[in-house]
Amino acid sequence: MTTYTAPIDDYKFVLNDVIGLDRYANLPGFEEVTPDLVDAILEEAGKVAAEVLHPINQSGDLEGCHWDDGVVTTPKGFKEAYDLYAESGWGSLTAKADYGGQGLPQTLAIMVSEMMIAANWGFTMYPGLTKSAVEALDAHASDALKQKYLPNMVSGKWSGTMNLTEPHCGTDLGQIRTKAEPQGDGTYRISGTKIFISAGEHDLSENIVHLVLAKIPGGPPGTKGISLFLVPKFLVGDDGGLGERNGVSCGSIEHKMGIHSNATCVMNYDGAVGWLVGEEHRGMPAMFTMMNEARLWVGIQGLGIAEVAYQNAAVYARERLQGRAISGPKNADGPADPIIVHPDVRRMLMTGRAFIEGARALAALTGMQIDMIHRHPDETVRRDADDFVALMTPVVKSYFTDMGVEIASLAMQCFGGHGYIQDNGMEQFLRDARIAPIYEGTNGVQAMDLVGRKLAMNGGRAVQKFFAEVTRFIAENKGTAELAPMMEALEKGLGRLQQATLWLMQNAMAKPDNAGAASSDYLRLMALVAMGWAWAQCARAAVQKLAASPANPAFYEHKLITARFFFERMLPDTGSLLKKIESGADSLMALPAEAF
Amino acid sequence: MTTYTAPIDDYKFVLNDVIGLDRYANLPGFEEVTPDLVDAILEEAGKVAAEVLHPINQSGDLEGCHWDDGVVTTPKGFKEAYDLYAESGWGSLTAKADYGGQGLPQTLAIMVSEMMIAANWGFTMYPGLTKSAVEALDAHASDALKQKYLPNMVSGKWSGTMNLTEPHCGTDLGQIRTKAEPQGDGTYRISGTKIFISAGEHDLSENIVHLVLAKIPGGPPGTKGISLFLVPKFLVGDDGGLGERNGVSCGSIEHKMGIHSNATCVMNYDGAVGWLVGEEHRGMPAMFTMMNEARLWVGIQGLGIAEVAYQNAAVYARERLQGRAISGPKNADGPADPIIVHPDVRRMLMTGRAFIEGARALAALTGMQIDMIHRHPDETVRRDADDFVALMTPVVKSYFTDMGVEIASLAMQCFGGHGYIQDNGMEQFLRDARIAPIYEGTNGVQAMDLVGRKLAMNGGRAVQKFFAEVTRFIAENKGTAELAPMMEALEKGLGRLQQATLWLMQNAMAKPDNAGAASSDYLRLMALVAMGWAWAQCARAAVQKLAASPANPAFYEHKLITARFFFERMLPDTGSLLKKIESGADSLMALPAEAF
Repeated sequence: MTTYTAPIDDYKFVLNDVIGLDRYANLPGFEEVTPDLVDAILEEAGKVAAEVLHPINQSGDLEGCHWDDGVVTTPKGFKEAYDLYAESGWGSLTAKADYGGQGLPQTLAIMVSEMMIAANWGFTMYPGLTKSAVEALDAHASDALKQKYLPNMVSGKWSGTMNLTEPHCGTDLGQIRTKAEPQGDGTYRISGTKIFISAGEHDLSENIVHLVLAKIPGGPPGTKGISLFLVPKFLVGDDGGLGERNGVSCGSIEHKMGIHSNATCVMNYDGAVGWLVGEEHRGMPAMFTMMNEARLWVGIQGLGIAEVAYQNAAVYARERLQGRAISGPKNADGPADPIIVHPDVRRMLMTGRAFIEGARALAALTGMQIDMIHRHPDETVRRDADDFVALMTPVVKSYFTDMGVEIASLAMQCFGGHGYIQDNGMEQFLRDARIAPIYEGTNGVQAMDLVGRKLAMNGGRAVQKFFAEVTRFIAENKGTAELAPMMEALEKGLGRLQQATLWLMQNAMAKPDNAGAASSDYLRLMALVAMGWAWAQCARAAVQKLAASPANPAFYEHKLITARFFFERMLPDTGSLLKKIESGADSLMALPAEAF
Repeated sequence: MTTYTAPIDDYKFVLNDVIGLDRYANLPGFEEVTPDLVDAILEEAGKVAAEVLHPINQSGDLEGCHWDDGVVTTPKGFKEAYDLYAESGWGSLTAKADYGGQGLPQTLAIMVSEMMIAANWGFTMYPGLTKSAVEALDAHASDALKQKYLPNMVSGKWSGTMNLTEPHCGTDLGQIRTKAEPQGDGTYRISGTKIFISAGEHDLSENIVHLVLAKIPGGPPGTKGISLFLVPKFLVGDDGGLGERNGVSCGSIEHKMGIHSNATCVMNYDGAVGWLVGEEHRGMPAMFTMMNEARLWVGIQGLGIAEVAYQNAAVYARERLQGRAISGPKNADGPADPIIVHPDVRRMLMTGRAFIEGARALAALTGMQIDMIHRHPDETVRRDADDFVALMTPVVKSYFTDMGVEIASLAMQCFGGHGYIQDNGMEQFLRDARIAPIYEGTNGVQAMDLVGRKLAMNGGRAVQKFFAEVTRFIAENKGTAELAPMMEALEKGLGRLQQATLWLMQNAMAKPDNAGAASSDYLRLMALVAMGWAWAQCARAAVQKLAASPANPAFYEHKLITARFFFERMLPDTGSLLKKIESGADSLMALPAEAF
């Protein structure tokens, strides 16, 4: 009963007016990315999302996955949708041509991902995990493994997974017990139990390629003794054909709050044959290639769910007649006014809108930097891009997913009691959204990654460059009358972020708990400033377009209104966040553990 | 797999040390409320909650209610638990002795409610709705109706419901279509459809007494033409025995996000016999007696769910070994430290704790004022109490329920992936919690009640008295060294609240949308100041106890630490809330409705 319409115009605005894709035509691979091609891809992806994936979203939730003696059946319609998705090449957008990929920019792929996730989160996880596995193998596997596995993974004939968590450890991977015994022939025998493995077993692809963290006996303790292995469900012959079933099986699937249509598996490895990916004991850095990619993608899940939840709430708010506008009737001939006349309903909708549009721009700006890392000829540009992406990865993952939950909840609130019952589909959005702040590293882990690692990386180079860029942007634009109040607000937000950063430098060395105590609030503070910077770029683009008397001025005027909402109603949280950060760790850590 | 332990010591602290129950022994009915009696009731309620209700909480969620041809079956164990609950008198604590009640203070009943809700929300709604119906009938029904219905409702033999919502209207009750045709014999025939009727049909009680809003043909339009009727499931003979089935039936039950064990019913009235409660066309004020009571009680649901979610998260955080403390190992002999060593986990737990303990004190302070309204001999005291309760009702309803969702979500986050799967029970808390910001008037409606009605009531008398009381408290205590930083923070918060109030006075008359646009943020701002005031009273009580060298100083020291957390980490939001309020309605209202 929910609907989804791909926000194509907004993608085009971000690509053409904010980023200016035409300015990058000299990048390898970008020369073919013409406006016509981009439009065609966006339109077609929007169609698949709306017409193929969204219609099986709610039924997929109600039916869920079923496990029977190791075999997992996905909901009705998923197999057909998967085949269409794979055959149409939606899974191969960014993969290299060597393996049958289309070599398209990540910036574009992020938008396609957002649409697919918005339409059907549970479904999109299947090909999404494959994409991350492909990138990890591409970066770290031997040529032989790449040749053997990547073409079928890129085509979607085979799918991929990532196996990290065990019953006794998730975040703390140093504790993993899964063993990899070398067989002397270049292979290893993998034994152990992995849990919470998304898409670990299902009926969509012919083979499933598991990337598995395990310890080779005799290696160093902790995370330094972890290696990464490729373990296929079916062994693959030299001719590329499927052979025997490998010693890996799905012991059960979890019953969860949401994402029912994606199988969350207990995977039992019982002497399964595996191949080393990268070097022995260097599994963590290799897995991080996959995880960093996946973390951004999880951030996009937050954005996607916010979009579809917002869309449905907006439709409802325009149609549901309840009460009269406090400023006088707006639908005098009807029994009541539509609830969109009520300022508090507007507040909920505008919060969704301001998050979504700003986040979409920030995601694309980050996507562009990923493309730079992979394509730009200049090493300095690549390094700068790498710094930016390293800084933004935890920010996008955490802020977007927290806001995904928040916006799904606000959208449900617009429906009143009708949002709480299953029929209308709004509560599914909230249940689905709630996994994202947990998986791929909880949002608290992201915050520690930001404060404990990313800030200090290379003497603070990444964060200082970010500050410099925001400062430069403010200076460049504060003379523009339409932008001045926004620049002033952004300057204040940036000042608070800088003050918080300074506070951390002065207080976290002597007392490391001050870093941990500040981490989540600091991440949110940086996210708001990054969003402000992205919104400021959107606003500038809108002002520039309006100056050129466009055919559709309303689109750009609405952009400026939504920007204003962000600066007036969302950015001010920077003030209270700074206060909380500066209060330090004492009030958090003073109680003895047994008092809780 | 979840556990619940009633926080008896904290209830005693609030009653004895913060409120000082012994100072009120001169109030009618309070003279018998001895410390021994209070302790016995709290202990016994805690036992019922932990040993009878909590063990059927998760099974009740999984099994849910079942509808078959109008008959609703509650989950296994509910009937036995209900009988025990009723027979032990838990439903009759506050009811008048005339009807078999125990006449105990609301202040105490609120604590008992919190325990029962924490243990099993879905179950507690059945007797909870009866309690609200009893109070509405007691206040508005004729003596004949009271004599006939109240004794069996108070005993729990019969239960009660409230029937407001219809498919096309919830908040906007002026639109209701349910008709009540006078029969000339003092009865009415009720026809229409009501939806979202909690406990509308079930197998727990012998009869169900529906309080139904309906329109008598020919009456005034809108809410001024609404009357309240009593419509029993089974007609009651003059001898009090049950007669024929009345013309009301349950057409179906909803499938919902949570509170599965409570039947949410579509109720079809098909010429059912009803009796007028109160006067014709005066149904709204009568229903508000029930709703105001119910709104506070819904706030307590937020508190209760936060408590049980927090307790389970605390246990998990003390036991789950993952990572090492940033300040050095705390469990060096083990494979890792318990996650409670991590400051960000502490932040989540302390947020829960600081909300819960402050909210518990604020709820009790409000409960005392309800008792004053009903019992105090001095009219001025009663009027002041009434003002305070009117002001706090929307604040408690909205803030407590929003925080119930927030704390349930944070508690789940402490569990990581283990929180998202059904087995561990944490996701049920979040699903259950999510209804409370919606029902009994959405939190947005509460915010408009506060800003649009309660602030202006009697020329602002209620809010001015609240400001004066907080100001007086600050002045009285800021000389105490241990309290000074808290008083300073509270003073700042109060100043912001006063500034926001002034802004509303200056800006909402000319442009009413400014009131609506500010309403939710204003409510949150007032809630934080009210919480700060309640916390300040807890802190003062702790300081006074510590000065007397108590046997358990740790309890009071921990109180001061948690108070400090509230003032340093939660109260600062007042700053950003004021900024948002003062930005006005423009950025919310500028977009045309069709742009959404």
